[in-house]
This record gives sequence, structure tokens and C-alpha cells, in this order.
Amino acid sequence: MTKFKGIAASDGIAIASAFRLTEPDLSFDKKTIKNPDTEIDRLNQAIEISKQELRTIQQRTFKDLGRHEAEVFKAHIAILSDPELLKRIESMIKTQHVNAEYALKDVSDSYVKIFNSMTDNDYIKQRSTDINDVTKRVLSHLLGVPLTDPALIDHKVIIIAHDLTPSDTAQFVPNYVKGIVSDMGGRTSHSAIMSRTMEIPAVVGFQGSLADIKDGDQVIVDGLTGNVIVKPSNDEKNEYVEKIKKYRQANSQLTSFRNVATTSSDGKHPIIAANIGTLDDLQAAIDNGAEGIGLFRTEFLYMDSDELPSEQSQFDIYKTVVQRMAGKPVIFRTADIGGDKELPYLHTPHEANPFLGYRAIRMSLDQPDIFRTQLRALIRASAYGNLSIMFPMIATITEFEHAKRIFEDERAKLIAQDVAVGDIRIGIMVEVPAAALLADQFANVVDFMSIGTNDLIQYVMAADRGNRRISYLYQPYNPSVLRLIKSVIDACHDNGTPAYMCGEMAGDQKAIPILVGMGLNEFSMSATSILKSRALIKELDSREMVTLANKTVSLASTSQQVLKYVHQALGKS
Amino acid sequence: MTKFKGIAASDGIAIASAFRLTEPDLSFDKKTIKNPDTEIDRLNQAIEISKQELRTIQQRTFKDLGRHEAEVFKAHIAILSDPELLKRIESMIKTQHVNAEYALKDVSDSYVKIFNSMTDNDYIKQRSTDINDVTKRVLSHLLGVPLTDPALIDHKVIIIAHDLTPSDTAQFVPNYVKGIVSDMGGRTSHSAIMSRTMEIPAVVGFQGSLADIKDGDQVIVDGLTGNVIVKPSNDEKNEYVEKIKKYRQANSQLTSFRNVATTSSDGKHPIIAANIGTLDDLQAAIDNGAEGIGLFRTEFLYMDSDELPSEQSQFDIYKTVVQRMAGKPVIFRTADIGGDKELPYLHTPHEANPFLGYRAIRMSLDQPDIFRTQLRALIRASAYGNLSIMFPMIATITEFEHAKRIFEDERAKLIAQDVAVGDIRIGIMVEVPAAALLADQFANVVDFMSIGTNDLIQYVMAADRGNRRISYLYQPYNPSVLRLIKSVIDACHDNGTPAYMCGEMAGDQKAIPILVGMGLNEFSMSATSILKSRALIKELDSREMVTLANKTVSLASTSQQVLKYVHQALGKS
Repeated sequence: MTKFKGIAASDGIAIASAFRLTEPDLSFDKKTIKNPDTEIDRLNQAIEISKQELRTIQQRTFKDLGRHEAEVFKAHIAILSDPELLKRIESMIKTQHVNAEYALKDVSDSYVKIFNSMTDNDYIKQRSTDINDVTKRVLSHLLGVPLTDPALIDHKVIIIAHDLTPSDTAQFVPNYVKGIVSDMGGRTSHSAIMSRTMEIPAVVGFQGSLADIKDGDQVIVDGLTGNVIVKPSNDEKNEYVEKIKKYRQANSQLTSFRNVATTSSDGKHPIIAANIGTLDDLQAAIDNGAEGIGLFRTEFLYMDSDELPSEQSQFDIYKTVVQRMAGKPVIFRTADIGGDKELPYLHTPHEANPFLGYRAIRMSLDQPDIFRTQLRALIRASAYGNLSIMFPMIATITEFEHAKRIFEDERAKLIAQDVAVGDIRIGIMVEVPAAALLADQFANVVDFMSIGTNDLIQYVMAADRGNRRISYLYQPYNPSVLRLIKSVIDACHDNGTPAYMCGEMAGDQKAIPILVGMGLNEFSMSATSILKSRALIKELDSREMVTLANKTVSLASTSQQVLKYVHQALGKS
Repeated sequence: MTKFKGIAASDGIAIASAFRLTEPDLSFDKKTIKNPDTEIDRLNQAIEISKQELRTIQQRTFKDLGRHEAEVFKAHIAILSDPELLKRIESMIKTQHVNAEYALKDVSDSYVKIFNSMTDNDYIKQRSTDINDVTKRVLSHLLGVPLTDPALIDHKVIIIAHDLTPSDTAQFVPNYVKGIVSDMGGRTSHSAIMSRTMEIPAVVGFQGSLADIKDGDQVIVDGLTGNVIVKPSNDEKNEYVEKIKKYRQANSQLTSFRNVATTSSDGKHPIIAANIGTLDDLQAAIDNGAEGIGLFRTEFLYMDSDELPSEQSQFDIYKTVVQRMAGKPVIFRTADIGGDKELPYLHTPHEANPFLGYRAIRMSLDQPDIFRTQLRALIRASAYGNLSIMFPMIATITEFEHAKRIFEDERAKLIAQDVAVGDIRIGIMVEVPAAALLADQFANVVDFMSIGTNDLIQYVMAADRGNRRISYLYQPYNPSVLRLIKSVIDACHDNGTPAYMCGEMAGDQKAIPILVGMGLNEFSMSATSILKSRALIKELDSREMVTLANKTVSLASTSQQVLKYVHQALGKS
């Protein structure tokens, strides 16, 4: 039995046998061939099979994970369809009478060389990686050496991998992949994010050597603590079987909180709502007892499509959502496109700092046709339920007034056409520091504010949380962030405006006590966090949390001090 | 006579004859040649002359504008030295018996095609541009068609150009280029920035057609208003000769403010200091009567070099600066590398959002050897004058304490070695919103704070000011920005800590009245702004400015309202 430590990346515990995702042997010799045409036929067959495989993976990925994730396979197929590339390989086989493997590798290497020699840019490196990946796939078919193929797994396994690529995860059969161990990255690595999305227990940043884990070894992955145990003793195994049982019990006890209102121990009623982006998410929100939808991310309609979604297709979805929420409030955020969410069909130019660039409401006001189409779909859907609209990335009062004028304009036009229209509240996301700093002025003109902590924290700390080297600066508990959040909530309440939050912080068990103390009116979070958050709030006395909140903003100077206060407060209440 | 409007991009007025920077005719026919070797000789000669030219331009640029600007010509020379590229052109001449022009163009086009087909990334587009530029230069020598060469200008001219490339401006003989008109971009375009650096009056975003201006036409460029007058009437010309005289007089009257203290009309004494980065800048600061150096940008020592500068070479410069400032305070900012200031020799990886990334103090704390070397040079120089140190991009108290510990450690080691050491004040740049929001906590641990508005505004507004499509959001007068600045100054004063500013805003004539009202202790600006700022402050009553400042933060909700208040206040005082 060997115990290892890593970073807990995705909740849950699993016991199963190891399945190593390893590199196949694709070596070959250079050969002189007699019949170039036969060789070219071999090449074309291998390319055709590779393209067929890639299409299958692409479709599966598109369906399971979305358009963005499937994009890379489209790029791979495009490479294999590039006439320039194929012409060069064929011409080499013809003129030099070499085998297809050699010609393929030689031409592909020369492309990679050109890319790498001219630059040290990451984007081009990614293109080199794509060419290498595709070459590997075609080579595997030429050589008859199978690539290690996760789609072939037919029993329950723990995946052991250096890092997971999108093409790996796309091939996972969810019921068979019970856990993941990788030695790359932290909680924001691709492996970690994918495992949370798929709700598979995972440990990343594995501190041992993956080579010590053999195929078929029994492995325990504890995604709660970051422990990995290889070939556990019987005692160890029994202990973990017990832990798994307890973990499941704790999870199932939470279901008793499904159909009750959220209530603090002293009788306060903050609302717990869900963040969703698709109709699948909607079902999970309902199943977990969401009291509303605090954030519908409409950009997914734009991203999971090859063209701009029509007014009618948007209307159908918006209407379904408000109808299924049956009178509970639903807040739709207008498209937050740009930044890290690019739409290839809009051909927006590359930016040096996309997070500080042309995105969200900035794009909507600059391309009002797209914006107006969406607003019409939303206004029409408002007749079918409790619908609110909020604008993302608002920085100035002028932007809000401009956006609201366009909304009023479309609403008036629809009413003039005798279209049924419901009451619609108009609010903003508070995620640009400028808006937070002017919250008192915004409170005069909006119906509600929803604090988007994911971006707000990035801007307040001037740290891209996707950037591993400085991700330590993404500090939700930093007193500077808490002060700004409190000032927004206070400004709202001074004006009788409700204050919501729809960033990840709203579902963070360490942040919730502080936010209850600040009097936040609505916590909007991913569906899987709703029940445990409702259970937590039931234990909190809001008056004690007021004291906690005040301490964090007035006394603390670091995140560590804030967490100490939270710890103390939870011990007491 | 024809009058046109454009955007005033660089102060001053000029009258001279037009010099059009136009595209040469580099067309040619495909020819079959008999002797490939002669053709390859022609090619190699043209390449050699081109490389020689590029080396000259590169050296001149390095000397006049710095390493960073010269980088592009290094890339051009590298392309012409790429054996892969040359081999392909030669092989085409040999096997297909085509002329050098055709082979060169064909191979270069195929490179450009590969780059462009695989991506829409700006960086790669730049590489395509480089290949095209180089091809053009070699073609011009093959064809004997001279490129329009600004280095050949031998009389006073107004440059008329679509946009100015670095290779254009590098060739300017300053005394002959009196003005610039271009129809591209705004105040942040390359043409605009270069013209301000070279102090040449310029109008960009020209709203007429540049084709209407002929070579030799007399042209007036008014860089104060954005007016461009082509073939002016005598009256018009006389009027402008008068304006030029007045402009010069006003400028020379300012010299009376050179050796006096900065004093408001009611006797307050804020300090006006200079932002500098080189010893040339230092001379300009002294010539303009700077009362100190509020910001020495030490990163230029790192950027104008092919390797990390040694402790001794840094010490020599720091010592010279404090000695020449003769007891006046000098604040050195430790290296702000990263972001848009990359050092090729450090091989930092490309980042998705460099402004939110691994830069400044983040890099210093992560690579403490570089940081310690710089601190030692600074501590040693402190024996020779009035020296302070500030850390850039501080976001958390923890970072500051970490940086200060390293400073204390190096200082103790030098003292133990009997090295002479002066008193050193340690402060921070306040440019990350988190630091501004925690200013009261920072005031307990720092000796001073200097507000870096350039970055602070970018983060508060979540807008990259270099990004043309959203640069309208870079709003120094937005009440949100002013509130944050005021809260920093107030927090400093509550604690007896001096508050400085070293962003562009400190030298902005519309912002200065507000900042005087907020009680800012030191305004640090580019040397050319010192005298007019001192003249402006002399006219201000600080008590009235307090009223102005309070109005901007409590009543205004937009930049426009703030500017209206400033206008009213200046009308009164």
C-alpha cells in the first residue's frame, strides 16, 4: 500500500482499478517503395479513417460538452483536408519513392518547424500541437498501432494520466470512469475543470510518480482531501468504503432541504437561486429546489451554434425556462460574448487583453442588431412568466442608459404590434469595479443589481484567474473585495434596491456566512451547491453574521485573517 | 485653399510643404531564365544590400528610440537569414528556371498563405506583414525601384501618410520633419504616440482624402485643434504665422516658472516632480524645474539591454540620478516588467491577458534574484542622495510585507559588509484596485503611496486603453475613478502618510484642479507638462478646489458632469 498527496480537484471518493492513458509506440523505418500509387492509397485510407474518427469524436463532444470544446476537432479535420499539405506528402512519395509514414512525418515536421522557428507565441504552438496530434492519429492507422482509446474502457476505472486532453475526456463513458488522477496543474487546470463538470472525483497535481501506478492496480481517489492510495490494505479499503457510505448519506440527507424555504436560525429568508445556461441545467436547478434562476447565461445559445440564433429560437427557449419555473423569478443576462467566449462566426479580431476588451454590453451597444433581436425574444417571453433582464459588464451610467433606451424602444414597438408583454425588471451585473464604486448612483436607475464576483475579483486584484502563475491572487476573501461587495449591498439597501450575487462566491461555504451578514438578498449558484448552502444557512444566526461581516471589512487586512474570523464565527453559531 | 479636420494628436503648429509617403510600383513579369546561377547571384546581392540597409535602420532606431522599437528590424534581418527560405527560392530558380523576382514572390507568398490560412491571430498576421515588408525591400533592389525613403528628405516637410510604420519614423531626420498628417487611428495610434515622443505637431484620423494633397503642396498642421489646411491663402497663412508666434511666446513665458516653488493662489505648496526613465529624461526634468523625481521607471534599464543589467551598471545610473538631483527626492520604482513590457531574454510565456498577469512585483517576488540585485544597487546608491523605493502592482498587504522583508534582508547584509547606506523610504504604487480599497491598512505599513492612474483606470473600468474599440471607456474623469483616488488620499492623510500621483492624470490640466482639491501632495508628470501645470496651480484657490473635488465625487454620475464642474470652477477662480 502506498499513500500519495495531491490537490483535491473534484468532490467525491472512488475505488477502482487503474487505467493508464499512455503514449503508443509509433516508431517506423524509412523505406524505399516501388509503387508510389499503392503507397498513396494507403495514406489516403489512413487519412479517411482518421477523419471519420475525428468526426465521431467531434459530434460526441459537441453534444456532451458544447461547441467550444468541439472546435479543436474541427481544426484537426481541417488540417487533414488541407490540399496543400496532402499535395506535398503525395509529391514526396512520388518523387522520392519513400513510404507514406516517412513522407507524412517529414512534411508534418517541416510545417511544425516553420511554425516554431518564427515565433514563441502560444497560439502558434497550439497549431503545432494540432499538427502533431493529427499526424499521430494518421500514423497509428498506417502502422496498425492503436492509440490508447478511452472510448474502449468497458469496466469501472480510475484514469491515470499526465493531463487530460479534450480528445481524451470526450471519449469517456461516464459510468465507467469513476475517478481521475493527474500530475499536472491545480484546481483550474483542464483536468480539474473537466472532472468537476462531469462530477467525477479527481486529484490533480499528484505528488508521487505516475509510473508507480500499474494498469489494473486498485486505487482510491479521495477528491475531498487530495489523498490517493495505491493498492490499499484491507483495513484501508474498508475505511474508505465506510467514508464513501458516509459521503453518500450526507449528500442524500441534503435532499430534505429540497422543498423548503431558505431560512437562517433567526428567521431571515435570503433566496437561493441557480445559475444555468441550458435546459439540462434548468432541470438540475428544479431538482435541487432552486427558488429562482439568478443567472441565465444566454451566451450559450450563441456558442452552441454555427450562426447567430434567430429571435424565434431564442424566444422558444426563454419561454420554456420561465414557464417551467412557474412564476419563480428568472433573470436573463444578455449575451456576454467576447473575452474568453469568442464566436468564430462573428470574426471579432484578436485582442491583447480580451478580459479588458470588446465584450458583453460593449459589443451589444456596438452591434445593436444582435442585441435588439435578443431583447425582442426576451420581451415576448415575459408574457409567460416572471422575467427580468440584466446587462453584463456595465461600467458607466451612460452605458446603462443607452442599453435601457434600446430595451424601451423594442418594448414599445412590440406593444404597438399588440404583442403580449409582461412586467420586466431591468438590472445590471456589478462586475466592473467602476460600477461597484458608483453603486449609489446606479441604485437610482436600476431595478436590481447582481454582483458577478468571478470577473469583479479578477479586476479588483488585476489577476486573470485562468493564469496559473498568478492565480494565487484570485482572492475572494480579500478584505478589499469584501469591502467593495459590502459597499454595493449597502448602497442598494439605502435605496430599497435588492442586491443579488451570481458569481461562484455565492455558493462558497466559507463566503456565505459573511454574505448573510451583509444582508445579501439572493444567492445564485450552481445547482449542485444549493442544498448544502441551504443547510448551512439554516445553522447561521444572521445577527452574529453581521458582526462577522463588519469584522472582515474593518479589522482584517488579509484573506487569512478573514478566514480566521469565519472559522471563529462558525464555531460559535 | 482647403480646410480639413482630424484629431489633434501632438501639440504645436507647423507650416511646410507636403511629402507623401507612398507605395512604390514593384510589379514585374514572370520570365524564363537561361542561367539560374546568375539569377541566384542577383538574388543574393539584393538580399545582401537589403540586410545592410536593415542593419543601418536597426542601429539608428536602437540609438534614437530604444531596443524595443529596433526589435522589428532584427526580425526582418532574421527572415533574410533563414536558410530554409533561401533554399526554397534558390531551388525554385534552379528547377523551374524562373526569374528571381518571381521565385522570391512565390515562396514568400506561400509562407504568408500558410500563416494566414491557419489562423486569424494578430501576432501571426504581424509575421506575415514582416515577410511582406522584407519581400518588398528585396524586390525594390531586384527591380531598381527605390522605396520611398524618409531618410532622403533634405528640406522641411509635412509628412502625409496613411499610417507611419516604425521603419518610417526610424528614418526621420528630426529637423526636417516639421509635422505629420495621417488618416489612421486616434490619439493612441502608433503615428500619434511617435509624433508626441518626437515632439512633432501631428493630426491623425484625417477626415479628408490624403490623395488630394500633392507632393510639394504647402500644408498647415495645427496639432492643437486638429485643423489641416492645404494650400492656404495668404491671409490664412499670415494668421497661422501669428498663431505659431503666440504659441512659442506662451511656451517661453512658462520658463519664468522654472525655478520657483509650486504655489496655489492661497499659498498651498504641492510638489511637482517628473516621471523619467533615462538620463536624457533626467536632463529634461532638471531643465523644466522638477522639484523631484516622482517616478524613475527602472524597467528601461532592462529593456534597453540584451541581458539582465548587472548590479554595478544599475548602481552607476541610480547614483548619477540622485547625485544630479542634489538632495531633491527621487523615487525609484522597482522593475515593472511583463504586461506590455516583455524581455525576450527572460523567456516569459505568452499570456492570454498580460495586463492581468505575471508582471512587476509578481515577477520580482517569484524571481527574487533579479529583485535582490536591483535592491542592492538601490540601497548602495542611497548613500549619494535622497532615495526612495516603491513597488509596482502591489495588490495585497502580504505581497508588500514579503517585498519589504527582502529589502530589509539585503540592507542588513550590506550594512554588515560596511557598505554606506542612506535613509530610504519604502512605498507602493497604488494601481491595483485592491490596494486602493485597502489604502487605510496600507497606510499603516508604507512610508508613502503613489497613485499610478494609467493602470488603475484600466482595472477600474476593465478597459485596455490600447484597445481602440473600447478606448472610450478609459475615463480618468469618471466619478468612480475620482472616488477611489479620493479615498486613497484621505486614507493617507488620516494616517499622516503622504499621497503622490505618477500617472498621466497628474499632468492633465483638467484633472489637476480636482487633485489640488483632494490635497494630493505630489504631482509627478512628464517634464514637458511641468511648467504649464505650475502656471495652472498658481491660478487655483485650493479652498475652491476642495468644493470642486467634493462635488465630483458626491454629485456627478458621469465624466461629462465632472468636466462641467471643472469648467465652472476654473471660470470662477
